[in-house]
Amino acid sequence: MASKKIIVIGGSAAGPKAASKARRMDENADITIYQKASDLSMASCGYPYYVGGFFDDRSQLLCSPAGVVRDSKFFWNAKKITTKVQTEVTIIDKKNKRIEFRDIKTGEVGRATYDKLVIATGATARKPPVPGIDLDGITSLQSLTDADYLRKVHDEGIIKKAVVIGGGLIGIETVEALHLAGIEITLIELLPQLLTFLDKHLARLVEKYVQTKVNVILQNGVAAFLGENGKLTSVKLQDGTEIPCDLAVVAIGVVPNNRLAVDAGLKIGKTGGIIVDSFMQTSDPDIYAVGDCVEIPNLITDLSVHAPYGDLANLQGRIVGENLILGNISQFPGTIQTGICKVFDYGVGSTGLSESNAIRLGFLNLKTVVNASLDKPGFMNGKLLITKLIVDELTGLILGAQVIGPGDVSKQIAIWAMAIKGKLTVDDMATVDLPYAPPYSLAIDHSIATAHIMQNKLKGYYTGISAEDLKEKLKVKDNMLLLDVRNPDEYEQMRLGIGEKLIPLGQLRKRLDEMPKDKNTEIITWCKISLRGYEAALILQANGYTNVKVLEGGIVAWPWACEK
Amino acid sequence: MASKKIIVIGGSAAGPKAASKARRMDENADITIYQKASDLSMASCGYPYYVGGFFDDRSQLLCSPAGVVRDSKFFWNAKKITTKVQTEVTIIDKKNKRIEFRDIKTGEVGRATYDKLVIATGATARKPPVPGIDLDGITSLQSLTDADYLRKVHDEGIIKKAVVIGGGLIGIETVEALHLAGIEITLIELLPQLLTFLDKHLARLVEKYVQTKVNVILQNGVAAFLGENGKLTSVKLQDGTEIPCDLAVVAIGVVPNNRLAVDAGLKIGKTGGIIVDSFMQTSDPDIYAVGDCVEIPNLITDLSVHAPYGDLANLQGRIVGENLILGNISQFPGTIQTGICKVFDYGVGSTGLSESNAIRLGFLNLKTVVNASLDKPGFMNGKLLITKLIVDELTGLILGAQVIGPGDVSKQIAIWAMAIKGKLTVDDMATVDLPYAPPYSLAIDHSIATAHIMQNKLKGYYTGISAEDLKEKLKVKDNMLLLDVRNPDEYEQMRLGIGEKLIPLGQLRKRLDEMPKDKNTEIITWCKISLRGYEAALILQANGYTNVKVLEGGIVAWPWACEK
Repeated sequence: MASKKIIVIGGSAAGPKAASKARRMDENADITIYQKASDLSMASCGYPYYVGGFFDDRSQLLCSPAGVVRDSKFFWNAKKITTKVQTEVTIIDKKNKRIEFRDIKTGEVGRATYDKLVIATGATARKPPVPGIDLDGITSLQSLTDADYLRKVHDEGIIKKAVVIGGGLIGIETVEALHLAGIEITLIELLPQLLTFLDKHLARLVEKYVQTKVNVILQNGVAAFLGENGKLTSVKLQDGTEIPCDLAVVAIGVVPNNRLAVDAGLKIGKTGGIIVDSFMQTSDPDIYAVGDCVEIPNLITDLSVHAPYGDLANLQGRIVGENLILGNISQFPGTIQTGICKVFDYGVGSTGLSESNAIRLGFLNLKTVVNASLDKPGFMNGKLLITKLIVDELTGLILGAQVIGPGDVSKQIAIWAMAIKGKLTVDDMATVDLPYAPPYSLAIDHSIATAHIMQNKLKGYYTGISAEDLKEKLKVKDNMLLLDVRNPDEYEQMRLGIGEKLIPLGQLRKRLDEMPKDKNTEIITWCKISLRGYEAALILQANGYTNVKVLEGGIVAWPWACEK
Repeated sequence: MASKKIIVIGGSAAGPKAASKARRMDENADITIYQKASDLSMASCGYPYYVGGFFDDRSQLLCSPAGVVRDSKFFWNAKKITTKVQTEVTIIDKKNKRIEFRDIKTGEVGRATYDKLVIATGATARKPPVPGIDLDGITSLQSLTDADYLRKVHDEGIIKKAVVIGGGLIGIETVEALHLAGIEITLIELLPQLLTFLDKHLARLVEKYVQTKVNVILQNGVAAFLGENGKLTSVKLQDGTEIPCDLAVVAIGVVPNNRLAVDAGLKIGKTGGIIVDSFMQTSDPDIYAVGDCVEIPNLITDLSVHAPYGDLANLQGRIVGENLILGNISQFPGTIQTGICKVFDYGVGSTGLSESNAIRLGFLNLKTVVNASLDKPGFMNGKLLITKLIVDELTGLILGAQVIGPGDVSKQIAIWAMAIKGKLTVDDMATVDLPYAPPYSLAIDHSIATAHIMQNKLKGYYTGISAEDLKEKLKVKDNMLLLDVRNPDEYEQMRLGIGEKLIPLGQLRKRLDEMPKDKNTEIITWCKISLRGYEAALILQANGYTNVKVLEGGIVAWPWACEK
């Protein structure tokens, strides 16, 4: 039997993974990867860390775990995979099961036939359609060429001012990388918040933190790039502001590279991603597609999404590699859009649905809570975590979680991602058996404590108020009572300063006569993280107060400036 | 209505948690904690870190998150809970719903009645019944008094040699703490391995690592403690060896403090723990029991186990607090015996069943795999993780996982604990959507990669051999071929040296003529972590070799000395 001819278009992440898995499934298949760029198997998620100087050896972005650069020679020797780099596939002729390609260096063109084809063409950085976009000094951080350019900026130390456009994952990672190069940065975001996978409250907390490092401008877009002699000199914003700079990095998202698929008549989704089924098969049974060029189902909403994450690309590649050889036996179920990024000393992560997304999609009966605590005991140098949990009030099912802070965000997000995968409820999470020892967690892990607060809410023990809702209420000066129940020394160090009264929890029972006569008065209680705030609320409720709410997450989750 | 009278016996972890939750559920209940020791709410899992000098302020072991020492005054002011410290409950008279107690300082006795009683008497360190056990210089690390004593040892710096008896969690933590005090340590374990929650292979890897820090003696117990003038001078082992030392710490496990319950006629289980139902109610409906003095179901085996973990004690306390006030509305389902400990720079954790435990309990159709990889990319200073995964071959259900290494063990164990809680299978885990960014994980997380190898095994792509089985085979010199497929420079740096042939993976296809003529020859392949070893095995299989196995976990998981 003739060996199976497999062509893979794209050599970054999903493509090589599919090719390698196919080889492992069939030693005799004839496998060729066509790659437009000159490098293969780039760890593209590592670019910001190379730019930022976390490591200096560029080849580490291209190495196998054993430290060998994954070039064409490597692919041939170790995997018997032919790789054609700097070779662009120009046409997919699906009728004749043939592709046409062009050698970018020589301009030579050629054709090749396939039994099975994999499209792994990735995504391209979106460019704002404004004047000056082609000036020198404007880049994105999408390709290794971009990374090389920005690393040169880092090493030369000539550029002093930069503007980063876009407050999403890549934008934020770029901000950190350039900040580490000693560059003064302005971050511009068109929307009213950074990191739109976060709800506003947590996004605002991240913004408050990022503001301590760089200048952040929200709700403002780029009107034009201004320059002299073809070189960028400033960015002009939609409100007229001009920000002088020598460098602008555009990070306003990516679009799936679907041109080949469109031209070939393959079905394309609303997101621009190629439509695939759970076997990662396109509308043509001999063509699979994987990675940043496809759209896949969100497992909670069942809606198709464009989810350009490196981990999913690899998982999909493995599925396709198996299916190419053995027929459709392996399935990729979809995503819950789990993501994480490092923001200076903060981790910022999310899994499942945000509240705003859930509302937008018509979810009803949402219940949310914000919890703040250390990730491990103070005596083990525990660091802060702030979590927002979103559940379905009727079933208790976990719908989503967002976690930020200097603490161990990665573990928290992994826990919630697993909770969603396992279709667990708040009650399940309230007694889950997680690893505990003081070097790693609190006796009641932050995730479990979050479930406890949610359980208290669902059972009606706990009535919370979000920082945003309290902020709104403060605009209307009514006669509510704001009650901080910490100790005086804590109050001296740090306080909201929004008109609150201080009564330490330990004195509250003795000082009930200082409470309003009208038991229906709205009372908002808090402490540093609102654990004592909750206890205070219960004492007041037990004493007949009918309208007591706890400020969720307490002072550490207050996303605006504090008096102290 | 008269307020409900609640008595809690025990003021360490579960007791105060139950009392505090009961208070939150009922502002008017009359709640009293009786505590034999002089301190309350001690973070006992923190003792080894206090002893080891991770922090100096002893009061941090007793503080609330807000930094207030949880003494009697705190409990009264903040929680309106009466606490009677240094007061031992001597009798539970369940017929008359009454206890008798004795003030340890004054000897005074008293009585008190209850509506609901909680037994949270904890556990006591087991003592070996050998001569000399009462000499000065012999302690355990179970109470705050023990911690104070050992911290004094740490600070004084007089003691130079110590013996730690018992290679379980507490023993290992004690070893680290005393090592940090500059003390020369010998660790004695009666069994053939350390940390019996681990299977032998991983335990041996931990032992290999611990041996680099302290002297480890296995399969040897204490025959006697020898002394002069009432002070310990050496430990005599069962094989006659005498180890001179000024200090011995006994950590051979704990026994539930069940005396009060036994005397009261409550049902006691085979483990010695008080029998409770899922509401944590004992055989007397007015008496609950929580924490280290009870036995609870293992959720996988349904067998009762004694699981003295601080996190479970707290979770149980919260359940009981609610049930005390509202009737039995809240349930504690049980444990999967998730645990973790810090062993110098290693994390060592386990969740669910070990293979040896599963075999002992009669589980059939077990499939296991060992996987080794970094926790995040090398360019982000990734550190090694070694996981052993245990699944049911027929259903693919995850039964257990053990993870060790300098990498992020805590997250891995949390992931597997959640997988067991969610009743997930290997296939579920192969496409799970975990948080990925280079500062936190590999593109394919170590846990997912472990599931992939298991999937490959279950599908018959991958035939593994454990390090132990290979070691056994090496005793019989047959004509198997041992094949290391790394590069020559790697081989020069580190190698097993067990008679292996070196053929780098990239040369294997060209050097097949060097392979045995007999295609049924047993061939064992490996590399550093056995990824390339797996690819080599597939190449050989595709070329007709019928008996090829991959050394699981490769060289880094080889638990014995390497040639280099």
